[in-house]
Parts: sequence; structure tokens; C-alpha cells
Amino acid sequence: MALLMYDLCGSNPARRFSPYCWLVKLAAAHKQLPLDTTPLPFTDKASIAFADWKQLPVLTDGDTTVVDSWQIVQHLESSYPERPIAGSADAMGQALLIKLSVEMNVMGPVLRSVILDIHNHLAPADAAYFRETREARFGASLEDLQAGRESHRAALQSALAPFRATLKRQPWLSGESLGLADMLLFATFMWARSVSDFQLLNSDDPVYAWRDAMFEQLCTATKASPGYDFSDAGMSS
Amino acid sequence: MALLMYDLCGSNPARRFSPYCWLVKLAAAHKQLPLDTTPLPFTDKASIAFADWKQLPVLTDGDTTVVDSWQIVQHLESSYPERPIAGSADAMGQALLIKLSVEMNVMGPVLRSVILDIHNHLAPADAAYFRETREARFGASLEDLQAGRESHRAALQSALAPFRATLKRQPWLSGESLGLADMLLFATFMWARSVSDFQLLNSDDPVYAWRDAMFEQLCTATKASPGYDFSDAGMSS
Repeated sequence: MALLMYDLCGSNPARRFSPYCWLVKLAAAHKQLPLDTTPLPFTDKASIAFADWKQLPVLTDGDTTVVDSWQIVQHLESSYPERPIAGSADAMGQALLIKLSVEMNVMGPVLRSVILDIHNHLAPADAAYFRETREARFGASLEDLQAGRESHRAALQSALAPFRATLKRQPWLSGESLGLADMLLFATFMWARSVSDFQLLNSDDPVYAWRDAMFEQLCTATKASPGYDFSDAGMSS
Repeated sequence: MALLMYDLCGSNPARRFSPYCWLVKLAAAHKQLPLDTTPLPFTDKASIAFADWKQLPVLTDGDTTVVDSWQIVQHLESSYPERPIAGSADAMGQALLIKLSVEMNVMGPVLRSVILDIHNHLAPADAAYFRETREARFGASLEDLQAGRESHRAALQSALAPFRATLKRQPWLSGESLGLADMLLFATFMWARSVSDFQLLNSDDPVYAWRDAMFEQLCTATKASPGYDFSDAGMSS
């Protein structure tokens, strides 16, 4: 198999929750590229030392190593141009703005809503690492953060306003066809879905219906793809 | 002249401040399309009654009338495909998300920062209309809104975070070439610049340098274009 991705996992190696790793899996699924994955917990840095890098995902494509999810997306798009995920230089350039908008505006309230759930799915050494780094970042305990999840959920609804308004006017964030903009937001929902049953969206939200359609297009439809399995991600709504 | 846009103006007909009209002017400038404009104040609805529409911009292209800035952008891109502003269906689809993000996240703090300046550039009937509708929308006087401009300016810096982060990694919001994503944000700055000398950005902000480059590319360089004149927009920094 040519493509191998090192994928962040919980105490159960089948539980893969990193939104950055999800982005790569979604891009590969869209391109119908077989992608093998090797699960690694947070604290296993030794297994990716060959890449001179400390964060997942790391991709090997034959003799080539690519680090950082955005670089991996560029690599897949240029090396495997069939079934494009962006389709033009302009769309790829704009997608960086959309990626950073998702990271800066949407990921925060999602993370705060499920942060204790993430912790509880980690092996002991990873859980200790996660608690220490995240509590230092937010200046609050994981328990206090998640206890405020209703307010984080309200903040998420505001952050999603432009996405919601877009989906009222066109079927996908990328327009008439599913594309990279859709994957960028959906990866964030797969992150939550992989670890939590907390309901982030109201069922009458256009984002909810879009998320179902994304799951159908990129997860259910590709479940049989060799090398990775979307079926362990299917908890929250 | 084939293309004629009805353009919102102040008490001085040369003062054109609508961000939606600016978007059309920027798109036409990028495409090097001659565009005539007819200035109309807020309260002149009679002159666009032929379009069965009450808001500017309205475009006539020969016998065709197009209303709504986004529809006009689509019309220009499909009717005049040379020098594309989006360049692909995916990029145009994503641009709607970026447009709505600018409108929902960026325009608010910009408007609150310069709302009294807008009022003060309007003819008496328009000023009364503007005050009544905007004070009802915000539940505050125009004077109180603008008096809080330092806090609106701070909110603007937060809203611009994804745009700023993008411009640290690539020269334009559309990637390696100036495109529609850039026009969508820049139109908002032209709105403020047309009516106010309030400094919205710090001079060491990457968005500041990008804005200068946009002005050079789409305003200074096209100042001689027949049909419209960017030179009356050049006040604020």
C-alpha cells in the first residue's frame, strides 16, 4: 500500500478523533485513494521521530514523508489530481482562509463542549498529558470546561452562522458539489462524534442535514474502502 | 456604454460608500470592464423602480437588468469570463461562505465604528432615514454607537483573525493571485474609507499592507478606467 497515515487514537486503537487526521481521511475518501493508517496515542512521539515532527497526522507516500494536515492535503491534490478536492488554485487559496476560520471560530466551542469526553477516552499517560496541557491553555479544569457546555454550544451556534446561511442558499459549502470547504468543517464534527454523544446541533438546523449528507457521502459510502474504517466514528448527533 | 450601475451616494454625488456597490466596482475593475455609474441617494427608490427592487446596486447590461450584488457578480463572471474573479465553480461556491462571513463577522464592527460618519455625509432626507432605521436596528443612538468605536475596533481585530492568519501564509486571500475573496473583504474597507478618517487597522497588521496592495491593484491602477472614479475614496487608514 502506497499511502500510510499515522493517526491519533485513544485507549482503544480503533477510536480515531483528531480533526486534522480526519481531514486527511476525508480527502483520501473523496479521491477514492486507499489509505492505510497506523494508530498512535498522544505520547508516542518515537514512532514519528523519523519525520522530525511531533504532531499527527504524518503521511508516508512510498519514499516521501509529508507532515502537517494542510501540507498533506496539498500533496494529495497535486500527486493525485483525479477527483479534485479544491479544483483550482483560487479554491485552494480560499480554502486556507476557510480552514483558519474553522480553527479560530468553530473548533474552540466544540473542544470545550467535549473536552472531558476526549480525556476519558485516552490511555492513562495520554490522559495526564492532555489534562495538563489543556488545563494550562484554558486556565480551567476539564470538568469545569465541560460543565459549561451549554454556553459553549450557544457560542457554536453563533460561530456557525455564516456556514448555516451558506447552506440555506446552496447544497454544499463548496457550491453545487461537495468539496474541500465541506471537509474542513465536517472534520471538526467527526472529532466530536468520535468521542462524545453530546448533541452539538439542533435537528432543524441546515448544518445538521448537511452533516448527515456529508456522513453519507464520505463515510457510509466509503466504509468498504481498504485501509481505514469510518464505522467507529458514529456516536454523537 | 453597455454596463451601468446605480450606485449609492451621499449628499455629494461623488461620495460612493456602499460596500455592495464597491464589490461590483472592484469586480468590474479586475475584469477591466468599463462601468458607468449613476449616483442615487438612499431615499431615491423611484429611479430603480423599473427593476422592481429597492436596494442598490442595480445593474443594467444592455437590455438585461440584474439586482443584488451577488447576482451581479455572477452575471459579470458568466457574461465576461475573461480575467475571472473566482476562476472555478468551487471557488465561487466557497466565495459565498466568505461573503457571508465578512457580512456577519466583519461588517458589524466596521459599521458601528463609522456609523455617525456615514450619517454626516448624507443629504437631510437620507440622514433622517438612516438614523431612524439604524437606531431601531441597534437600539442605540448613532452618537452612542460611534462613541464606543474603540471597543468596536477591538472587536474588528478579533473578527479579522482568520484573514490576518491567512495573509501571513499567502499574499492574497485567494492564494497566490488576487481574487474574489480579496474583493469581498476589501469592499468593506472601501465602505469605511469613503466616509471616515478613523483608523481601523494598526499599521503593522498584515491586513493593513494587504489593503494598501489591494488599493494599488484595483483602485490606483484603474483610476483612469472610463465610467467610474476611485479617487474620491481615499480618506481613512
